[in-house]
Amino acid sequence: MSTQYQQLCSLVRRSGVLGSIGALVSWDQETYMPPAGAAFRAEQLGLIAELHHKHATDPKIGDLIAACEADKALLANETIAANIRELRRDYDRMTKLPTSLVSELATTTSQAQEAWKHARQNSDFAAFVPKLERVFELTRQKADCYGIPAGGERYDALLDEYEPGASAKEIEATFTPLRAKLAALIHSVAASGKKPDTSILSAQIPADKQHAFGQMILKAITFDLEAGRLDVTTHPFCSGVAPGDTRLTTRYRDEKFTDALYGTLHEAGHGLYEQGLPKAGSPEGLFGQPLSEAISLGIHESQSRMWENLVGRSREFWVWALPHAKQYFGAAMANVTPDTMFAAVNTTTPSLIRVEADEGTYNMHVMVRFELERALLSGAMKVKDVPGEWNRRYKDYLGIDVPDDRRGCLQDVHWSAGLIGYFPTYTLGNLYAAQFWETIEQEIPDVKAKISRGEFAPLREWLRTKIHAHGKRYRAADLCKRITGKPLSADPLLRYLGTKAKAVYGV
Amino acid sequence: MSTQYQQLCSLVRRSGVLGSIGALVSWDQETYMPPAGAAFRAEQLGLIAELHHKHATDPKIGDLIAACEADKALLANETIAANIRELRRDYDRMTKLPTSLVSELATTTSQAQEAWKHARQNSDFAAFVPKLERVFELTRQKADCYGIPAGGERYDALLDEYEPGASAKEIEATFTPLRAKLAALIHSVAASGKKPDTSILSAQIPADKQHAFGQMILKAITFDLEAGRLDVTTHPFCSGVAPGDTRLTTRYRDEKFTDALYGTLHEAGHGLYEQGLPKAGSPEGLFGQPLSEAISLGIHESQSRMWENLVGRSREFWVWALPHAKQYFGAAMANVTPDTMFAAVNTTTPSLIRVEADEGTYNMHVMVRFELERALLSGAMKVKDVPGEWNRRYKDYLGIDVPDDRRGCLQDVHWSAGLIGYFPTYTLGNLYAAQFWETIEQEIPDVKAKISRGEFAPLREWLRTKIHAHGKRYRAADLCKRITGKPLSADPLLRYLGTKAKAVYGV
Repeated sequence: MSTQYQQLCSLVRRSGVLGSIGALVSWDQETYMPPAGAAFRAEQLGLIAELHHKHATDPKIGDLIAACEADKALLANETIAANIRELRRDYDRMTKLPTSLVSELATTTSQAQEAWKHARQNSDFAAFVPKLERVFELTRQKADCYGIPAGGERYDALLDEYEPGASAKEIEATFTPLRAKLAALIHSVAASGKKPDTSILSAQIPADKQHAFGQMILKAITFDLEAGRLDVTTHPFCSGVAPGDTRLTTRYRDEKFTDALYGTLHEAGHGLYEQGLPKAGSPEGLFGQPLSEAISLGIHESQSRMWENLVGRSREFWVWALPHAKQYFGAAMANVTPDTMFAAVNTTTPSLIRVEADEGTYNMHVMVRFELERALLSGAMKVKDVPGEWNRRYKDYLGIDVPDDRRGCLQDVHWSAGLIGYFPTYTLGNLYAAQFWETIEQEIPDVKAKISRGEFAPLREWLRTKIHAHGKRYRAADLCKRITGKPLSADPLLRYLGTKAKAVYGV
Repeated sequence: MSTQYQQLCSLVRRSGVLGSIGALVSWDQETYMPPAGAAFRAEQLGLIAELHHKHATDPKIGDLIAACEADKALLANETIAANIRELRRDYDRMTKLPTSLVSELATTTSQAQEAWKHARQNSDFAAFVPKLERVFELTRQKADCYGIPAGGERYDALLDEYEPGASAKEIEATFTPLRAKLAALIHSVAASGKKPDTSILSAQIPADKQHAFGQMILKAITFDLEAGRLDVTTHPFCSGVAPGDTRLTTRYRDEKFTDALYGTLHEAGHGLYEQGLPKAGSPEGLFGQPLSEAISLGIHESQSRMWENLVGRSREFWVWALPHAKQYFGAAMANVTPDTMFAAVNTTTPSLIRVEADEGTYNMHVMVRFELERALLSGAMKVKDVPGEWNRRYKDYLGIDVPDDRRGCLQDVHWSAGLIGYFPTYTLGNLYAAQFWETIEQEIPDVKAKISRGEFAPLREWLRTKIHAHGKRYRAADLCKRITGKPLSADPLLRYLGTKAKAVYGV
């Protein structure tokens, strides 16, 4: 291996260490930071972002990348070639942003998240407007620094950060027909007149029992709790803080235990991906290199949605999980059967909160957000008009009235965190998950039987071998073709939802 | 104010922000980091220490200090002059250390703390020896970089970091007669034949009830929980992480609730100091400047020991606290009176664990550590000989046999954390606390009556005005003279302990 490549890897590792410090400080902001620490926290995050950006855009790194690109013998190694390809991409993107903008974005979004927390609590969108406007302003600047791709729009420059290679036009082309088909599905479910018994979902289960059950589930699906944690936050998330340190969060509502359960399964899906990435902490490890990082948010989300839905909402999952639930939750679960649970967690009912939405309606929530952030970014819409536009679309797409902004446009942390261009990856994740699953059922024919016996390791192993272990070696679209033999399509998701609707509603 | 002074303050603030990030990352290592994150955590802390040291020793800072020192008009302001005096001291000390040593010390002590945790658990000192040897080796290098003061010894170079201006010879001169007088006190207590009833200390109190009680106590003594937290760690500590963010830890033993109670009061004493320092988070605030920092560890410890002992072990404290304890702990406290509690928490009995030792024997523990680390540092003693020397001194000074290293030389985190030269400040803290207290009783004549009514704010206000608000404006010895009118002396502590021995043992 060339000395220059080794130097490059060591410099890149330093960026990774700085990034991991930022991730920990952000995690703390959401979990244990006392309220009065918030103002100063923004300054800490701003400085880390500045140091990270300064280091990652050091011309020394650019020179070393160029030297490696010129080294034909080095590039003959496909693994190294992939690493250098991605390092080039990252470096070129990052050097387009001035450090001052990066630092200001970190400070502003740290503040905006605090403003959002309060605004959400009080359902007071007006109080959030100034900070959100500033976030969009800075994000527009960021997009313009990246540059708008030929034939594309400003949104693409941001989307490319989360889903390399994707564009708003393509997303729209996938979403528009999907919306029509989902609307038809939602309509026929409603027309069936069937109402599965969902009373079990209102059982009162104290948070501590839910937490113990959640920890048991994590162990069962092989999430390594010696190398991770589960805490409580307003908005659940997963942070792959560092090698050996992957942190999940969830939230407990005594009166709806499935919220925390599916939230935990979702974040654990992300967490298994993080734990499966080849980022061993040893100084010789790949940590900091693209080969140890996730491909894209769409692929990341395919992992979380697979564990949450394809696994966690299957009948087989409840065959295994129900006896455990009865043990942890006692009398509340006495008369429940796997079939009751399966039907209860697979109803299709338009609702207000994305993270609690069922699989049939979930993607409608995503489409609303995609359309709004795209318009906000282009300037076609103003921040102050968000509540009205939000509520109008919820009426259009889901037929429901939004009673207040807390349960409307203030429900998600993303925009306050500067994560604009991120939402469509949720639906991409659902599409990838369903398509991967059809291949999994071919390659592990008894996967469902295994799940009903609580044997999750073979599925986890398949995901690790086929997806996690490769880091960023392949682009999302290539990985999809490599694994499933076909380009990404909405058909598997629609087939999957159709089968469920048939099982639950007979339609 | 001069532009150069403003520039200096802004650069110094950046050091402060980096320091606060390191403090948070260290806090996390002791509280919530999953075990597998330990190896990489050392790398994170090493990088932060490196960045902090590089920034703090930037020649720009040296130039600005020199420019301010030459500005007579600026120095006419006493506050600014004190700030510049301390910035000069810090800068000169820090520039004596190479960044590589600072970074290696951070990495090594992070690793050594993990090694210590395991060694302590298994009472296996041999497993800890290699890491501890390395810590002492690097610490010796550090001391030699600072340089040995004329007429002094290597230990002084380290002590000066924790207690500016102190020396090992002076400490020895204070400790030697103190040891004799304490030995006499311990002897006469034993000879009295009296055994106060301590059965209440073995009451079984579940950790969650102790935690709730501890939180109530924190609120009562005006520790601001909106700007701080209380968590659980193996070794309790207080970290003034950042403006608005002061974190305490404690540990709960169901079978001895006073451990956590006094641990919490102790750390809260540190915490009140941190919260009282003028380090408001706003960019115009003093944060990062010496004027917003603690004077010395001795003064810091005077605050913790005051709340723990002078307040928390007084009869008046229990007049107020006991009805609350009965409410939180129920039947276990039924037949207890303030007098029983007062006697039970003021027994003098030689014991193994420093942080659980009574006031009469506590300083003996400190003296053992001071002697050993002084000898280890000079090279007069080898790390491998620590257990033997430790145990011999416990027999000599306290008349007790150490059954294993877990309860012997492995009990404290300090050496693994590179905190060498730190222990004597514990006894200095006791001396300062007792001397301050005599002044407090003159200046707030009804302070004890106030405590018996749970009115802690006047005492807290006195401490804030006289001590906390000044930051590093005065040196410890000067502050002591300023407040009490006299130089530091062991007499107030001996008077205080004598009075207690009389009350409890009649001697």
